[in-house]
Amino acid sequence: MNSPTPSFYFPAPREQRFCTQCGAPLTQRIPPDDNRLRDVCEHCGAVHYQNPRNVVGVVPIWQDKVLLCRRAIEPRYDTWTLPAGFMELGETTAQGAIRETDEEAGVEIALGALYTVIDVPHAEQVHFFYLAQVLDPTLNPGPESLEAAYFSLDDIPWQELSFRTVSTTLQHYCRDVEMGEFPVRHYDVARPFPKA
Amino acid sequence: MNSPTPSFYFPAPREQRFCTQCGAPLTQRIPPDDNRLRDVCEHCGAVHYQNPRNVVGVVPIWQDKVLLCRRAIEPRYDTWTLPAGFMELGETTAQGAIRETDEEAGVEIALGALYTVIDVPHAEQVHFFYLAQVLDPTLNPGPESLEAAYFSLDDIPWQELSFRTVSTTLQHYCRDVEMGEFPVRHYDVARPFPKA
Repeated sequence: MNSPTPSFYFPAPREQRFCTQCGAPLTQRIPPDDNRLRDVCEHCGAVHYQNPRNVVGVVPIWQDKVLLCRRAIEPRYDTWTLPAGFMELGETTAQGAIRETDEEAGVEIALGALYTVIDVPHAEQVHFFYLAQVLDPTLNPGPESLEAAYFSLDDIPWQELSFRTVSTTLQHYCRDVEMGEFPVRHYDVARPFPKA
Repeated sequence: MNSPTPSFYFPAPREQRFCTQCGAPLTQRIPPDDNRLRDVCEHCGAVHYQNPRNVVGVVPIWQDKVLLCRRAIEPRYDTWTLPAGFMELGETTAQGAIRETDEEAGVEIALGALYTVIDVPHAEQVHFFYLAQVLDPTLNPGPESLEAAYFSLDDIPWQELSFRTVSTTLQHYCRDVEMGEFPVRHYDVARPFPKA
């Protein structure tokens, strides 16, 4: 913090203009032995590949109810979500799912099996949801949640859910509870959730 | 290519020194409402998050034999691998797996179900392998492969495989062939494959 603090921070967008290694302006070209355009530094030779991100979360269950969080951040501010967020470096998908549940709902869980694996190509993401049992129902939502609350499966606010990956995971869960079996479910979500 | 071409290109490493948005030097700090150190630009406010990458591939089967590729690139040059590579922006894991099979082995496949999902936290990666049937056995390996070849399950070169995710996927496949069932298998690979 040896320079003036900017008035706000924002996640760096996918579009890259300068090299992270030497600071020179980037060029778009197809590197040798590659087959698509990359952001390349013609000064130092660094190729700035970009890749999809993983979102990791849980279906947290307490006595036949599911725990949802009301989002305090964009996108989809003020809609209900399963606890989930971006996977961080150095962790597994399971560790990330536990961490996000702690950060967003403040509850301790016993993580169960991997449940849904969902490709979301338009968002350049893959989403993972684990089954989970809440160990103590006391809630302590963090700054990314307006509130956290338990919902009977009959009372899930289907019209106020945040993302297609959340609503489809909950739809699968409600059906699989009837069957008593929870196989891994893998599918694509091809289109964005309609705007509220 | 309006400037001198560097003598070689290399993938930009995780360590970032300059902002991709404005070119200013980066600082490490914990942004507001975050809880870990990030590479932050104090000039324009861009926060340069980093996330694990996905590797997508297949277990390509032709008449009870599995197709493997001998790597022509580092890491693990001259070892045998299942066709696989980094997932690209805008594609699904399935589309990436098909693309990598075409690039590395030059064969057309009918993609089957998602088979293994493997967390590799020390490499900051998640690996996905799909079952696949080879449609025409003619091989046309690309520049990333020294050769491609079919192996009976009894003749898999276990001591010359490239990665733990490849060997464990093949181990699961050999056992599941006996059972005739191929459920999704999800697990972690915690330690690097021993050096050859």
